[in-house]
Amino acid sequence: MQNLFNSTAEDQTKEIAISPDQLLEAWQGHRRLTRRVIDAFPELDLLTFSLGRMRPFSRLATEMIDMVVPTLNGLISGEWEEVETEKDEQDYVKTKADLLQLWDDTTAAIDILWAQIPPHRFQEIELAFETFDGPLYSVLQYVIDNEIHHRGQGYVYLRVLGIDPPFFGER
Amino acid sequence: MQNLFNSTAEDQTKEIAISPDQLLEAWQGHRRLTRRVIDAFPELDLLTFSLGRMRPFSRLATEMIDMVVPTLNGLISGEWEEVETEKDEQDYVKTKADLLQLWDDTTAAIDILWAQIPPHRFQEIELAFETFDGPLYSVLQYVIDNEIHHRGQGYVYLRVLGIDPPFFGER
Repeated sequence: MQNLFNSTAEDQTKEIAISPDQLLEAWQGHRRLTRRVIDAFPELDLLTFSLGRMRPFSRLATEMIDMVVPTLNGLISGEWEEVETEKDEQDYVKTKADLLQLWDDTTAAIDILWAQIPPHRFQEIELAFETFDGPLYSVLQYVIDNEIHHRGQGYVYLRVLGIDPPFFGER
Repeated sequence: MQNLFNSTAEDQTKEIAISPDQLLEAWQGHRRLTRRVIDAFPELDLLTFSLGRMRPFSRLATEMIDMVVPTLNGLISGEWEEVETEKDEQDYVKTKADLLQLWDDTTAAIDILWAQIPPHRFQEIELAFETFDGPLYSVLQYVIDNEIHHRGQGYVYLRVLGIDPPFFGER
C-alpha cells in the first residue's frame, strides 16, 4: 500500500497544463492556418515578395517544413540530425502547388511520427540539436513558435500586398 | 482498492507534455523577448510606424497587455470579464517609457495571479470569453500565440526601419 500511496502523491505534483494529444492538435491547427496563409499569396509574390530584405514567404514556409522531421525523429530516437538551413537554389520548390504538396506531405508525416513518440519523452531532459538543453517538449514548442512568428510576418506581407489574411483565430 | 487502481490506471492516460510551471516559464520568456522588441523601436516609430495599414507596434503591445489580467482572472475565478479592445485615444500610453512600465507591471501581475490558479483549471472545460470552448489552457495558449504572432510583425517593422531585431531564440 505504501508504494501505491506514494505514487499517487507524486502524481499530484505532476499537474498537466497541456497533454501530448493537445499539443499535436494545437500544432496541426496552426499548420492548417499557415497553409491558408501560403494559399492566400499570388504565386509570384509567394516566391519573390519580401520586406526589409527578409526572405519571401515561400522560404519561411520551407524553413518550417525542414524543421519538422528532424525534430520528431529526435523525439522518437534521441538522434538529432542537423536541420538543413540552406539548400542549393534548385532544391527549393518553384511553384505554389509544389509548396502546398510538400506542406501536406509534412502534415501527414507529423501524424505518423507523433504516434511513435514515447509519451515520457516530452518531459525527458536531453541536449537536442546541440542547442536546446531541457525537457524535450521545448524543442517542439520552439518549432511551433517559430511557425507562428514567421506566419505573423506573412500577414504583414499580405497586408502590404493589399490582401486580407486568413482570420488568426480560426484553426 | 478497486477505486485506487482505477484512479492509477486513469492517471497513466494523462501524460504531460507541458506542466503549468513550464507554461508560465515559456510565457515569461516570450514576454522578455517582446519587451526587447518594444525597446528596440525608436520612440516615434514605436508609437506611429506601421505597414499595410496595420497598427503601430505600441498598439499591438497594448493589445497583448490588455488580454493578460482578464484571462488570468478567468482562470482563477471562472468570471470572464470582456477584454477591452478599443480605448479612447487619451487612454493609450504616449511614451516608450510608459509602455515599458506598463509591460513590467503586467509581468509582475502575471507571477502573482498565476500562483492563484487552481492547477486543475488548466484542463477544465469551460466557455471562456463567450468564445473559447475547451480546456482552459487553450485560452492562455491563445494569448501567448497572439503575442508571438504580433511580435513577429514587429520584427518586420524593425527590419523595414533598418533596425536589427533581438535574436528570436533568446528568452
